[in-house]
Amino acid sequence: MEKFYRVKPEVRILGFDDGPFKRSDKDVLVVGVVYRGGSFLDGVVSTKVNVDGLDATRKLVTLVKKTRFKDVRVIMLDGLAFGGFNMVDMEALHEKTQLPVIAVTRDMPDFAKISKALDHLPNKKKRWRCIEKAGEPVAVATKPGRRIYMQYSGLRQEDAAAIVRLSATHSLLPEPIRVAHLVAQGIVLGESKGKA
Amino acid sequence: MEKFYRVKPEVRILGFDDGPFKRSDKDVLVVGVVYRGGSFLDGVVSTKVNVDGLDATRKLVTLVKKTRFKDVRVIMLDGLAFGGFNMVDMEALHEKTQLPVIAVTRDMPDFAKISKALDHLPNKKKRWRCIEKAGEPVAVATKPGRRIYMQYSGLRQEDAAAIVRLSATHSLLPEPIRVAHLVAQGIVLGESKGKA
Repeated sequence: MEKFYRVKPEVRILGFDDGPFKRSDKDVLVVGVVYRGGSFLDGVVSTKVNVDGLDATRKLVTLVKKTRFKDVRVIMLDGLAFGGFNMVDMEALHEKTQLPVIAVTRDMPDFAKISKALDHLPNKKKRWRCIEKAGEPVAVATKPGRRIYMQYSGLRQEDAAAIVRLSATHSLLPEPIRVAHLVAQGIVLGESKGKA
Repeated sequence: MEKFYRVKPEVRILGFDDGPFKRSDKDVLVVGVVYRGGSFLDGVVSTKVNVDGLDATRKLVTLVKKTRFKDVRVIMLDGLAFGGFNMVDMEALHEKTQLPVIAVTRDMPDFAKISKALDHLPNKKKRWRCIEKAGEPVAVATKPGRRIYMQYSGLRQEDAAAIVRLSATHSLLPEPIRVAHLVAQGIVLGESKGKA
């Protein structure tokens, strides 16, 4: 459990999002951007994970462990799943990287719908466990009266909320997530379409 | 010739850089980022051009003409060549997009060396013409006592210099060029290595 005595405005955040994909694709691009708080970009990493696969956690752990961006203090995820339902085990990601992890979503996840979708995939139990372990999403107001949702692992709720708020400089979403989204879209589609 | 009555701090700049490549590769990733001046990222576009090919100008014209980022006011390039010696004809890029174009380089280009390298490629005359037409590089101090070089087409030198200076917020290079470089590297290599 990381305790931030004071969350610095330039805390290095590595934010991940996946690109667009078709169900028939084998894998999907995952982009990570290193941001100084919500202010500017320090670097970019990327990998691929299988669509509806089970390798997302392992791929992120490998990427984070070998990165030259040693000053990263927090990992952020755009939701818990990449490439469809390739779920990230936040607790394992935290334990294996020794970095706190925050997953953010614009809206409250519809767990009944997710559970139904998982019925069509192998290893439902394993995937569902990632959702359960991530805990109940918590609302965070990143602009007056406008909330997004977060799940967190390896840090205190108040610190996670502080990091989400300080990095949401240009939209409701933290800048590392907004930018990772635009980069992944722009590379895969040739042009980014809109907000994360 | 675009005349900026006042260069706005949030002028939308579309900055391009290419990714790393091997001479044996057929083509190379070219990334464009839309920035509001030197402050933050609005969008990402991408295309591919042939290594040592002749399609860079045409590919950029197509991309700029079809982009949904209609508020772009200036195109920036990391040098005049993408994918080795696939030269951009700045004048044609300006005329066909009706946007001013600025090419920046960290150091003064070594034209004797470039000329020699072009001897080994077909269409030397056509490639060299792009360099001639771009004009003599002009020094611009983006930090006190630290200069970079620019060539420009379709705007006044003082406006080009103002745009370069206002967008160089986090390094000697304009932010759109620095970030396009990091994105292209991060996608192609899996991790960005350093400055543009």
